[in-house]
Amino acid sequence: MSGGEQPCAAHRLWGGRFSGAPAPALDELNRSLPVDRRLWEEDVEGSRAWVKALREAGVIDTEEAAALDAGLERVRERVASGAAEDAPDEDIHTLVERLLYEEVGALAGKLHSGRSRNDQVATDTRLWAMRTGESLRGEIAALQAALIDQAERTIDLLIPAYTHLRRAQPVRVAHWLLAHVWAFERDRERLEDALRRVAVLPLGSGASSGSGFPVDRELLRRRLGFRAISANSLDAVGDRDWVCELVFVSALTGAHLSRLAEDLILYSSEEFGFVRLPEAYTTGSSLMPQKRNPDGLELARGKAALLAGDVAAALALLKGLPTGYQKDLQEDKTLLFRAFDALALMLPVTRETVAGLTFDEASLAAAVDDDMLMATDFADELVRRGVPFREAHSAVGTLIRLAEERGVTPRELPPDAWASVHPAFGPPAGPPRVAAEASVESRTVSGGTARQSVTAQIEAAKRTIEV
Amino acid sequence: MSGGEQPCAAHRLWGGRFSGAPAPALDELNRSLPVDRRLWEEDVEGSRAWVKALREAGVIDTEEAAALDAGLERVRERVASGAAEDAPDEDIHTLVERLLYEEVGALAGKLHSGRSRNDQVATDTRLWAMRTGESLRGEIAALQAALIDQAERTIDLLIPAYTHLRRAQPVRVAHWLLAHVWAFERDRERLEDALRRVAVLPLGSGASSGSGFPVDRELLRRRLGFRAISANSLDAVGDRDWVCELVFVSALTGAHLSRLAEDLILYSSEEFGFVRLPEAYTTGSSLMPQKRNPDGLELARGKAALLAGDVAAALALLKGLPTGYQKDLQEDKTLLFRAFDALALMLPVTRETVAGLTFDEASLAAAVDDDMLMATDFADELVRRGVPFREAHSAVGTLIRLAEERGVTPRELPPDAWASVHPAFGPPAGPPRVAAEASVESRTVSGGTARQSVTAQIEAAKRTIEV
Amino acid sequence: MSGGEQPCAAHRLWGGRFSGAPAPALDELNRSLPVDRRLWEEDVEGSRAWVKALREAGVIDTEEAAALDAGLERVRERVASGAAEDAPDEDIHTLVERLLYEEVGALAGKLHSGRSRNDQVATDTRLWAMRTGESLRGEIAALQAALIDQAERTIDLLIPAYTHLRRAQPVRVAHWLLAHVWAFERDRERLEDALRRVAVLPLGSGASSGSGFPVDRELLRRRLGFRAISANSLDAVGDRDWVCELVFVSALTGAHLSRLAEDLILYSSEEFGFVRLPEAYTTGSSLMPQKRNPDGLELARGKAALLAGDVAAALALLKGLPTGYQKDLQEDKTLLFRAFDALALMLPVTRETVAGLTFDEASLAAAVDDDMLMATDFADELVRRGVPFREAHSAVGTLIRLAEERGVTPRELPPDAWASVHPAFGPPAGPPRVAAEASVESRTVSGGTARQSVTAQIEAAKRTIEV
Amino acid sequence: MSGGEQPCAAHRLWGGRFSGAPAPALDELNRSLPVDRRLWEEDVEGSRAWVKALREAGVIDTEEAAALDAGLERVRERVASGAAEDAPDEDIHTLVERLLYEEVGALAGKLHSGRSRNDQVATDTRLWAMRTGESLRGEIAALQAALIDQAERTIDLLIPAYTHLRRAQPVRVAHWLLAHVWAFERDRERLEDALRRVAVLPLGSGASSGSGFPVDRELLRRRLGFRAISANSLDAVGDRDWVCELVFVSALTGAHLSRLAEDLILYSSEEFGFVRLPEAYTTGSSLMPQKRNPDGLELARGKAALLAGDVAAALALLKGLPTGYQKDLQEDKTLLFRAFDALALMLPVTRETVAGLTFDEASLAAAVDDDMLMATDFADELVRRGVPFREAHSAVGTLIRLAEERGVTPRELPPDAWASVHPAFGPPAGPPRVAAEASVESRTVSGGTARQSVTAQIEAAKRTIEV
Repeated sequence: MSGGEQPCAAHRLWGGRFSGAPAPALDELNRSLPVDRRLWEEDVEGSRAWVKALREAGVIDTEEAAALDAGLERVRERVASGAAEDAPDEDIHTLVERLLYEEVGALAGKLHSGRSRNDQVATDTRLWAMRTGESLRGEIAALQAALIDQAERTIDLLIPAYTHLRRAQPVRVAHWLLAHVWAFERDRERLEDALRRVAVLPLGSGASSGSGFPVDRELLRRRLGFRAISANSLDAVGDRDWVCELVFVSALTGAHLSRLAEDLILYSSEEFGFVRLPEAYTTGSSLMPQKRNPDGLELARGKAALLAGDVAAALALLKGLPTGYQKDLQEDKTLLFRAFDALALMLPVTRETVAGLTFDEASLAAAVDDDMLMATDFADELVRRGVPFREAHSAVGTLIRLAEERGVTPRELPPDAWASVHPAFGPPAGPPRVAAEASVESRTVSGGTARQSVTAQIEAAKRTIEV
Repeated sequence: MSGGEQPCAAHRLWGGRFSGAPAPALDELNRSLPVDRRLWEEDVEGSRAWVKALREAGVIDTEEAAALDAGLERVRERVASGAAEDAPDEDIHTLVERLLYEEVGALAGKLHSGRSRNDQVATDTRLWAMRTGESLRGEIAALQAALIDQAERTIDLLIPAYTHLRRAQPVRVAHWLLAHVWAFERDRERLEDALRRVAVLPLGSGASSGSGFPVDRELLRRRLGFRAISANSLDAVGDRDWVCELVFVSALTGAHLSRLAEDLILYSSEEFGFVRLPEAYTTGSSLMPQKRNPDGLELARGKAALLAGDVAAALALLKGLPTGYQKDLQEDKTLLFRAFDALALMLPVTRETVAGLTFDEASLAAAVDDDMLMATDFADELVRRGVPFREAHSAVGTLIRLAEERGVTPRELPPDAWASVHPAFGPPAGPPRVAAEASVESRTVSGGTARQSVTAQIEAAKRTIEV
Repeated sequence: MSGGEQPCAAHRLWGGRFSGAPAPALDELNRSLPVDRRLWEEDVEGSRAWVKALREAGVIDTEEAAALDAGLERVRERVASGAAEDAPDEDIHTLVERLLYEEVGALAGKLHSGRSRNDQVATDTRLWAMRTGESLRGEIAALQAALIDQAERTIDLLIPAYTHLRRAQPVRVAHWLLAHVWAFERDRERLEDALRRVAVLPLGSGASSGSGFPVDRELLRRRLGFRAISANSLDAVGDRDWVCELVFVSALTGAHLSRLAEDLILYSSEEFGFVRLPEAYTTGSSLMPQKRNPDGLELARGKAALLAGDVAAALALLKGLPTGYQKDLQEDKTLLFRAFDALALMLPVTRETVAGLTFDEASLAAAVDDDMLMATDFADELVRRGVPFREAHSAVGTLIRLAEERGVTPRELPPDAWASVHPAFGPPAGPPRVAAEASVESRTVSGGTARQSVTAQIEAAKRTIEV
Repeated sequence: MSGGEQPCAAHRLWGGRFSGAPAPALDELNRSLPVDRRLWEEDVEGSRAWVKALREAGVIDTEEAAALDAGLERVRERVASGAAEDAPDEDIHTLVERLLYEEVGALAGKLHSGRSRNDQVATDTRLWAMRTGESLRGEIAALQAALIDQAERTIDLLIPAYTHLRRAQPVRVAHWLLAHVWAFERDRERLEDALRRVAVLPLGSGASSGSGFPVDRELLRRRLGFRAISANSLDAVGDRDWVCELVFVSALTGAHLSRLAEDLILYSSEEFGFVRLPEAYTTGSSLMPQKRNPDGLELARGKAALLAGDVAAALALLKGLPTGYQKDLQEDKTLLFRAFDALALMLPVTRETVAGLTFDEASLAAAVDDDMLMATDFADELVRRGVPFREAHSAVGTLIRLAEERGVTPRELPPDAWASVHPAFGPPAGPPRVAAEASVESRTVSGGTARQSVTAQIEAAKRTIEV
């Protein structure tokens, strides 16, 4: 191409050195538009900021700047109306430049001065991640709010806490629900920390050595809403830490969703019977008419597995890459979009499932009315009677074995059986009798199960998500 | 729904027990049609086999069978013409059944007798994998053929073999190319082994306990082209080993593609300069006019990273799942399609890149004309003169250090310097003089670099891919 | 070192070119002896075969060969007696060579002629993997045998099959146990396939270009028990496919162990109560005296997660490596040993846990005495009465909803309620009554739950592991 | 055990309920002492804080507290002197309690009151991680300091920056070194953020429901140096987010080390020849006397792969686990120790390698004296002459193709050839002549390559690590 005529249909951002176009097979592997087209708003926005920076740097004049800005606005409108559908371009940057040529002619060729797709795509993607990440933080908070709401309604209900999927000790249903709130709170914190590192502007770094024109990167930062500017151009174009970190934070959130899902799948099973899932969040079987399956929860569990693999993928992508930009990094968006899309699907389903839970009070009451759950309380009672805990533990263990051998529950054992196991169970104090409610109320320790502790927890949780 | 009327628009394969439809958020998470619609041919084909089996088992009569079969053929044609585009159905099975209702009315409701989506989707996906896997084996063989072709053209050229990215010893360019042929041969073998295990028919396993009707599974097996039938219904619906294995085999193929890519990226760099990539398989820079980048190879390397993560994902998906079908398994297709699609993109680009390589004979010759590459030959020569190898190794190392200190190459050292390092380098034999070609030719060992060994290798490689 | 004296304490296999020893920090990172010392038997064995090959190739004479062989035998004895404990050597090869120097003096320096640690370590590790892999195949078979034993004892007991952790249909306990047998059978097959590819001899490939001496690799192959010899020296030293494959096969076996573990953890919980784990395979709590925890099963589940990650690690290790040997590959043994060690711990615990299971017949009977589990049979019965299955499914779903609304089970609904749902449930046939045993017996399909099908399965399973 | 006698050899923290000891196979799988014994200092320290808390809560009296504290001090001394070597105990907690029994008799049995191994091990491990993590932050800073030192020495040297492993533009060597400083700075930040979340005290959470005694957790927090106390007992014992996060942060640091390693491996190769690694940080070949291999760097790259897999492992470990403590979590320490140990090996080797680098000024100068690297500058010059950048890019590309066709470099083309490509290259201005130094100096943009920008970067980097 010589002179200023506008490039035709097969617009490309490079080619002078090449005798022909890329082979179709390469094009199919290389084209990223199907993936990166969702960055179109950020691409246009970044370009408009760049126009301003070029004008300030004296690379273009005021009129050119105005024309480019107006052209970009029209491009924005056209893409919003579907101009990216089935577009043939290599990537979103090419598409936007092609449309800009259609709008403003050869002047469009001035936009890319001192800029590279390397710093451009990093800027676009970070901008997208900043916004989408913030929205996901809100979605997590909404799930936390649903859990807290349920916790407020279930502070009176008791449920067995499990370790090793064996009944351990009674706790308040609210306490169990709140356990998840804190896990998600850590996710929101981690996401916040990660987003702070995302909000570092690479624009102005060029292909690897910095822009060839003295643009004011502070101006770009302010205009695009970043927190800081990158310190080194070479690092800026090859850095994908933030993608790794966002994928990791998403994957850990996914793991938390999967643990909550597992609890709910178990507790809503015929065998546990503690809770009923909202019907609209279950599905049926094509063969078995009776089924009401917790598909949404199972898929959350499944997606957590995929996210875990994607963190390894993101790290393996970087492993052994030379500094600076390598084309491998194009896969970053696939990983980032997969992670955020997965959360965007899982979070609302989990939130609504939690909001719609109904607890079966009779099942819960039956489950916690079990001496076995009070075994620790029995040992603690012996401690209060002066017995070393290790000895008390052994004595209660022996008692339980004795009950088991006789086919009864501990409370059904006669007093002399208790006394035979340890004199401190004998007269005058006799066998301890501890009910689930008393057991729960005795744990007034901070973070414990007593009503006052749980109420304090609920208040703390509310304050946390209000921030 | 009472009576036999046909279900309306929002066709579902379940629902009698439910008071309403699933919530939109669940539907969005749960719907698999965007992923599994590519199984449509297999779904129709499996259904037609099922019609036959139902007729043989007496569940439907001959006329019904004929009507269903004809209806399914029309469904096949409609989907081929785009009927799955933007369809609202939950999955491909629902879509096919809905269209079948449209074709044959209430009779369509007889198709799903004794069948579940659990055995159906496993059958469809295995069938798809059998075919696509076979096609990928062909793609790998085509890449091998391109490598062998190049090997035949480059048997006279020498190149340094590298270990630790340091020049090690000279080898034939053909030898280096053939190294990759054997790696890909193992991939084809592994894929063949895996496909043998894929070709086990689950159909007839129902939801988990076996079909409620005594269908002849051997008939189904023959008709659908499977090798064997599954031995246990519960295992059959929950088994995703074959997905894990296919993803793994793909990921290892990806790793091989990435190693070949790395070699080519290095050897085509300005610094190595051994080979030139075909221009149509390189791309340019939006900023730097001189660039001709090996994007296709870099993307192969990047995709290898993503595939590695997906194997962990597939295994994590299964980890801790109870026996039998769980909804988590729906994610299997995402992983399988990702793996096979990645290979389908990477293999042709790599093949054509290999086919289009041109070697720079001068650069290669300069690189192997280096005494350092003959250090082992020097030591081997001492061994032939009766010196224990460990001692010979040490002597040659000392010699090289000496040359380095004097700023010359070993061959530039005077004879007395050689003799000072080890008497066996002294008179009468004197310093050994080994050229690269002689070094290469001395390795007549099987699998070695001598012309006869490499020629034998080429013949063996050809026989392998002809099979 | 000039002349033939024996190297002193800090024996090294290289150094002539170096002015000093490696820095301590590098040595700590680089030394592999703590990991590879377990290859000592294979290293000595491979060296003895190499002695024979060197003699056949005329590199050493008969006397030297005899002395080296005798020396290696003494080295073997010394290492067997602990000579590798706290040894300072870089790796097992250096240790063996150092000890050999101690035994036979300078002659030891002839052993490494034409050999490199690159082909040596690949040979040692493959040899180790061939043996350990075969032993693990036996361990898997022993677990299968335990499952089959239990299956034979439990063919009369019924248990709900679950999908989505919701009761689906009744099956025989034996059927559930056998489901796992087939999964482990695939593991044994995969391991067999992998071991076939492991048994390819790299020895004779030198550092990358083939041995400098014309050794007879067929002789080496026969002597060391390999199936084939590698076809390309460069490929042979850099190929770690077999490590990836063994780690993958182990990880999938681990996933199967985790699924069996999950079943057993669930079924032995207070809520399911179907089975009791052998006490000696459970452990207690330091705090809660009543606890009897399935730690062995949980650890199997946990280790499955670690193995999944290690497959990604193995693939990421290879990603982007240039052809041939790179030091990164040293990490292969860490991964391989981790995988095989994990299985060696998990398999016996799982086997003995299975062998010691005792089933609670009353709990099982209660669980399957539930109309809900027969919902599919009700629909199938309607099909036999001529109703299309989809319509039958919908009718039974409606019936169940009706029963649920009335707070009864389907069988407690009066005949007219049945008839109201679908006329085919009305006179003359009336409501179907299907008991669990009849449901199970109706599935005579191959792979189904009928006694005849399960008995055939047991026989097939027995034949499989006898091979 | 009845009464207060001291437990004998096979001390266990549980057992009353059990009729026998665990099976040896289970013990081998289950015993964690070989892994967790390195937590001994933290275990003793946590126990001493717990003694204080029990006394404040009135569970033990002042004399008992003093005796337990003195006993724990003696236990500490004994373990420091090797008492954990080959100890038979189940875990570090059991070992410490056993030794305490040996020191203070039955009183030792009072220590575990209101405490569980679940909260204890989480406390110990967090404490260990807080300390080791802080030390690793220091190690990273030391590596950054070495990079900055080298940067100060190399600000005058130019080197090609690479994208796609193709020469892109000249930069200062210092600029390339600094690129890595910022990556490691992010690692230190991430580690700091993670450690803030590690420093949350679980002690007082009991097995899952909170301690049965009203201990003052604020006192524990202050005494053990934690930042906050956990809000929910159930969450506290099952939370392993911090392990995932530490493994992830380590893995990303590993990825950065691998990228730096890759640069150094490339740049020190015969082909690039830019830099020479310190000899003491290279190793030799057992076969090839001339080799000096960058093993330390390759192992850093390899270990990065293993770390990547371990992040997936950590996430897969959590996937689908019910809330609260499950034995799977015992594998957390394996992952955490692996990650931190890997960094502790890699960081010093990388630091010393960097510190010992010597640059080959002639090679560097030759590499940047290449018109191709100035292609962007040529286009930028056209932009300054008023040509739209896209047109300028195309013109320079054409120019380079022309030069290539004629077998010359751009600067060797005659003026009329330049003018033929674009009139703006013609008179009066003529072909631009840009040398590497001028190109570098023109990038005064923040984060760019001009001396002033790089000097500012160095100052900023210094301030960062001084904090």
